[in-house]
Formats: sequence, C-alpha cells, structure tokens
Amino acid sequence: MSRKRFKGMNCSIAQALEVLGDWWTLLIIRECFLGTRRFSDFEKHLGIAKNILSSRLLHLVENNILEKIEVQHRGSRYEYQLTAQGKDLYTTISAIRQWSDKWIMGKGNEPLLVKDSRTGKPIPAVKVLDSEGKVIKQQHLEIMPGPAADQEILDRFNTP
Amino acid sequence: MSRKRFKGMNCSIAQALEVLGDWWTLLIIRECFLGTRRFSDFEKHLGIAKNILSSRLLHLVENNILEKIEVQHRGSRYEYQLTAQGKDLYTTISAIRQWSDKWIMGKGNEPLLVKDSRTGKPIPAVKVLDSEGKVIKQQHLEIMPGPAADQEILDRFNTP
Repeated sequence: MSRKRFKGMNCSIAQALEVLGDWWTLLIIRECFLGTRRFSDFEKHLGIAKNILSSRLLHLVENNILEKIEVQHRGSRYEYQLTAQGKDLYTTISAIRQWSDKWIMGKGNEPLLVKDSRTGKPIPAVKVLDSEGKVIKQQHLEIMPGPAADQEILDRFNTP
Repeated sequence: MSRKRFKGMNCSIAQALEVLGDWWTLLIIRECFLGTRRFSDFEKHLGIAKNILSSRLLHLVENNILEKIEVQHRGSRYEYQLTAQGKDLYTTISAIRQWSDKWIMGKGNEPLLVKDSRTGKPIPAVKVLDSEGKVIKQQHLEIMPGPAADQEILDRFNTP
C-alpha cells in the first residue's frame, strides 16, 4: 500500500500519520479521553470488529500512545490508558472537534461539549497565537526550513 | 469497508474524518499551506499516483475544502486553492505538526519551522486554554452531552 511510503517522508505531518495509523486509531484515542479503558468497552462504543480493535490497540501500545495495564493477577484482566505522549494529543483532538463543530455539525448541533470542570465555563476554541498571545492569521505564518531540512526542502525554499 | 460506518456516528471527530477522508488528504492540505496549487506540483511533492491524487482533489472540492479555479481560458489550466473552511484547518495542522515535532521528530529535528512573518519570532505551541486565556490541563476538561446528543450519548453520561 502507498501508506508505506509515508515512512520515508521528511515531514512531521506524515510521521504523525504513520503513528496515528488510521482513522480508527483517532477514534480509539477519543474513547480514551471519554474514559474508556477496557477492550469490551472500546468494542461496544465504537462498533469495531475484535480483530481490527486488537491490531489498533497493539499498534498504539507499540508506538507509546497507550499503555496496557494489568488490573488483576495473572493477566486475567487488562486495561488501556493513555501515556503522556497520548494525553498530549488532546490539543489535536480538540482542534479537530472544534473545526468539525464549526464547519460540519454546525453551531447548536454539537454532540458533545467540553467545559472547564473547575468553573463550568465552556472551553474556548483552540487558536494559533503569536509570541504575544494574540491570535495570528494564517497569512502571517511563514514556513521555513528547520534544522532537519533535507535537500528537497532546501530546494523548495530556494535556500542554497 | 468499515470506514462507511463513520458516516452514521454522532461524533464530531468521526464526521471530520469522513471529510478529511484519508491520510493523503491531510498531506494534500499541508501542501496547500506550503503554497502548492497545481496538479503537477502536488504530484511531484507528494510522490502520489495521478489517479489517487485526482480522486482526493475531487473529494476535497466536493467537501468544500478546496476550490478549483480556472486560471486560463477555456479550461486549459486549473489551480486548487483552500476555501475558508480549508484554511481554518491550519489550527489542526499546526497541532499535529507540533505534537509530532515534540514526540516523534524530537527537538532540534524539525524539518520545517513556522515563524511570524511580521516579527520573525517562532510561533508558540498551540494550547488548549481556559476562559481566562490560561493553559488548562487535560484533567480539568469535562466532557458532557451537547445539544445534539443522542440517546446513546445521554445513556453514557447517565443523563435521563
């Protein structure tokens, strides 16, 4: 499959997609943020086939997004929980959810809402901010070669 | 394919995945943010087969992420550009890129950097903020049924 080719791409997005794997993966991570921990609960809430769920959970454990925790003696019951790397995806998940609520579901049609548990106030949309903390428009973002830029990237930006 | 089932899910993430389609789609959008507009340039930079590229571009146009613009008379040359809905994905793309740079590529190994074109300063990481503009930890996010919650969601949250 063409997916294999992403591995060789010198691109942070492609490398993230390599780890996040496929769409089921992101929905499994969403479930984790909703508190799901057991195989049977992932199965029930996602309506996903056992074999697909097994392979995606294994992939997420191998890539350090989930940890498999023994919750009873002698391996009779396991649970899955997000690692620090996995928890750190809440910014990405929030950005996708907010974009979808704005452009696809539409205002007033949100299946879920997220509030601040300390104050009960809604969480504002995630924004790209400048160094002063002000919202920056997309046209003011300047993309440039980074420290690990290869020749292809340098050529694209006309950097000698 | 199981992907079809996402359509029926009452979930903003699943609906976003339905539109964003597959990983190639996100890389095509990344290319747009890098300034790519022509079919042949997408093909060159992504190393993607013509038929796959065609179908993904069509999907993105049909879902109002890209617009196909005639740049010469009588349809002899077209370019693709992001719609407002497509441009609004820069928050999501930034969040994915920053997560990947932090956890996969590693600090000092970024292929690309993004700066503020007005000041030359780096763009800080996208964060989930509370209503006061302070960073909020994931454990303080409280997920609850929204206005479009169905019975399944209400049951999950034990709401009568």
